[in-house]
Amino acid sequence: MGSSRAALGIGVVAGVGRPGPSRIAAPTPEGLLDVGALATTENTAFADLLTHPTLDALLAAGRGAWSDVLGWLRERLADPARIGPFLLPPHGVTPVLPFTVADYVDFYACEQHAMNGSEILRPGTARTAPNWRHLPVAYHGRAGTVVVSGTPVVRPRGQRAAGDWGPTRQLDVEAELGFVCGGPPRPVGEPVPIDEALDHVFGVVLLNDWSARDIQSFESRPLGPMLGKSFATAISAWVTPLDALAGAWVDPPPRDPEPLPYLRGKADRGLDVTMEVRVGGTLVSSPPAADLYWTPAQLVAHLTSNGASLRPGDLLGSGTVSGGRREQWGSFLELSWGGVDPVALDDGTTRTYLEDGDEVVITATFPGPDGARLALPEVRNRVLPAR
Amino acid sequence: MGSSRAALGIGVVAGVGRPGPSRIAAPTPEGLLDVGALATTENTAFADLLTHPTLDALLAAGRGAWSDVLGWLRERLADPARIGPFLLPPHGVTPVLPFTVADYVDFYACEQHAMNGSEILRPGTARTAPNWRHLPVAYHGRAGTVVVSGTPVVRPRGQRAAGDWGPTRQLDVEAELGFVCGGPPRPVGEPVPIDEALDHVFGVVLLNDWSARDIQSFESRPLGPMLGKSFATAISAWVTPLDALAGAWVDPPPRDPEPLPYLRGKADRGLDVTMEVRVGGTLVSSPPAADLYWTPAQLVAHLTSNGASLRPGDLLGSGTVSGGRREQWGSFLELSWGGVDPVALDDGTTRTYLEDGDEVVITATFPGPDGARLALPEVRNRVLPAR
Repeated sequence: MGSSRAALGIGVVAGVGRPGPSRIAAPTPEGLLDVGALATTENTAFADLLTHPTLDALLAAGRGAWSDVLGWLRERLADPARIGPFLLPPHGVTPVLPFTVADYVDFYACEQHAMNGSEILRPGTARTAPNWRHLPVAYHGRAGTVVVSGTPVVRPRGQRAAGDWGPTRQLDVEAELGFVCGGPPRPVGEPVPIDEALDHVFGVVLLNDWSARDIQSFESRPLGPMLGKSFATAISAWVTPLDALAGAWVDPPPRDPEPLPYLRGKADRGLDVTMEVRVGGTLVSSPPAADLYWTPAQLVAHLTSNGASLRPGDLLGSGTVSGGRREQWGSFLELSWGGVDPVALDDGTTRTYLEDGDEVVITATFPGPDGARLALPEVRNRVLPAR
Repeated sequence: MGSSRAALGIGVVAGVGRPGPSRIAAPTPEGLLDVGALATTENTAFADLLTHPTLDALLAAGRGAWSDVLGWLRERLADPARIGPFLLPPHGVTPVLPFTVADYVDFYACEQHAMNGSEILRPGTARTAPNWRHLPVAYHGRAGTVVVSGTPVVRPRGQRAAGDWGPTRQLDVEAELGFVCGGPPRPVGEPVPIDEALDHVFGVVLLNDWSARDIQSFESRPLGPMLGKSFATAISAWVTPLDALAGAWVDPPPRDPEPLPYLRGKADRGLDVTMEVRVGGTLVSSPPAADLYWTPAQLVAHLTSNGASLRPGDLLGSGTVSGGRREQWGSFLELSWGGVDPVALDDGTTRTYLEDGDEVVITATFPGPDGARLALPEVRNRVLPAR
C-alpha cells in the first residue's frame, strides 16, 4: 500500500514559519502546497474561499464552487514547476483539524460489525436488533473531541463497572469512513432527498472512533455510548473530495427487506475502499468498506428524514467497518472476541485491547480512474498513559 | 406565576429597526434593553464582549468578566430613567438563538422520570438500570437543531415501527433545565474537578427536549435516541446567569450508594426551581427540579471525567424533571402512562400525546434573595402539522 499514489486531499496547517494564522494546504509529492497563496497570486475567482484558517468557507460554498476549486487544484498539482514557489517549508508545519465540526453522528452501518458486537456482548441473541435492517442506526458523538491525525490519545479514566473507577482496561479503535458535509445549510424541516444527498458531502476522511469498552458497556443502558467514546475521535488531516473517489463507487450488498422509499435511489451506492489497520507496524485488519450495508447517500437521507437540518461541517461516521473474515474486523473488541482471543503482533507480543505506547495507523486504498489504486490519507494516533 | 418578577436574563435579538446584525439584549419591565449600545456609550471595559451578534464572546470570557458585566447590568436595570434611551423599539424585534451551541448533551438525572420510563416501556423491569445510581447517564443530542423559544415545531415523519413510515403519532415534550457552559475552553485530558464545575456554567435556560416516542422507541436499540429527538430542542430566549439563582441552591436528595469521589464536593447542590408545563393554557404539570438526583456540578464533573474537553456554548440538559406525583411529571409519556391514560385540558378535550396546533409553554420560578419568587424566561412552541 505504501506504493499507492496519494489521492487528492486538502486540509489546514499551522506553525508555518512566517507570521499569520493557520492556512489551507494540500499534500504533493514535493511537499505541502500553500493553496491560498497560489489562488491569491493567480487571482482566481475563488481565492477568498481558500484564504481562511479552516475549510469552513469552502465547505459552505457548495458543489459548484467545489468543482471549480478542485478542477483548478488538480491541474496545478500536475505541474510541479508551477507550484514549486508555493510549497511550504518542510519543517515546523503541523496539520490541524481542517474544519469546524458541527455535529458528529456515528452510524452503525456494517452488518458484520453489528452481528459480531451482538454475539460478543449478548451471546445467543438475535444477530442484529429488529430495527437494524430497516434504518441506519446511529447516535450523536462529541463534536468537541474530534481531533486530527497525530494527536496523542490519553487513556481515559472512568467507571469500568459499579464502583470500579480507573483507567480503561479495554482501550479500542474503530476503523471507519468519515463523510464531511457541506453546501448551504439545510433548514429545519426539509429532508434531503436521497438523490441529492451526495451534493451535501464534500469529501471523505479516515476516522478512528476511539472507544473504552468497559466504560461504554457500563454506561450505555439505555441511552447509548457516552464517555466510552467522547474522549477522542480522530480523523485524517486531509479531506479527500468525493469527486476524487469517482472510480470507487460500487453496488451495495443486497438488502432484505427492501428499504423504504426515502432510502432508495440512484445515489444509493457504496464505496470500494479497503482499509488497513496497523498496530506497532503489524497489519491486524483489512476492513472492506464496500461491504457496508448502508451507503453514504442513505446516511444523509436518513439523518434528515425527520426534518433535522444539515450544516457544513457535519461529520458522519460509517461505524466500524468489518468484513466477513476475522482479518477484516475493524476493532479489537471483535479481533479479540471480547478480550478472550489475543491478536499476535510482529514483535512477538499479543494484544486483546491496546496498551500504552501503542501507535495505531489506519490507511486505505480505492480504485483510481486508470485502474491503479489510490491512497487515502492516514489517521495515526499513539496511546499515552492515563494522567 | 404570572405575578412573579422576572429574573435577570440576557439574550440576542434580530430585526431591530435599523441597519446592523443581531444584538445582545436584556428584557426589562419597560422593554428590551440594547445592552451593547449602553455598554458602548458608557465606555465600559467590557463593551467589546457585548457588541457581538451572539453571547459567544461573553460565554468565553469566564467568571470574572461575567461578574463585572452582570453587576453592571443589574445596577442599570434598577434605574429605568438611565436605560430609557437604550430601549429597543417594541415592534419587529425577535429573539434569536442567543449563543452558538457547541455540543448538546442531554442527561437523565431525574430518578422518578427514569423509574416511570422503565415501568412504562419495560413493565416489571428493575426500576432503574444498574448504572443509574452510579453515574449521571447521558447521551449527545443534535446541537444543530437547538432552537429558540417561539420557533414552531413541525411534526416529524419517521419509522414508527418496522415498515411503518409517517408523521409521529406520539409527539411529546420533556420539561428540563438547561445549563449553558462558558469560560475558557477546557483542553482535552483535563477533567473539571467538581468544586470548579460551576465556574464553567454561565447560566440556566428552560429547555423543552421535543420527542417523537414511536420513532425513538423503534430506533433506539442499542445506541440510544436519534431521530426521535433530533428534530427540535427548544430553549428560552434569555439566559439567566447562575449568579441570579443564588437563592435557589438546596441540598440534593439522599444518594445510595454514595457517589464516587469525583462526584462529591461542596458544589454538589441542587436548584429549587419549580417548573410549570401548560398546553393550550391548561397547567398539566409542575415538575420540581429540586428533586433531581444528580446536580449541575455533578453533570459537568462527569462529562469531563474521561478527559473530554468542555467548550463555551456546550449545553447540558438535565433530562426530564418529574416529581413523585402524577401532576409533577414532565412528559406526556408519563402523564398519559404511555398513551393509555389521557390528560384533560380546560377546553374539554383530552391529550395522550400532542396534537397539531397545540402550544406548549414551560415556565418556572425559584426563590429570590428577598424570599419572593423570581421567574425564569419561558420556552414556548406551537406544533405545526407534518409537511
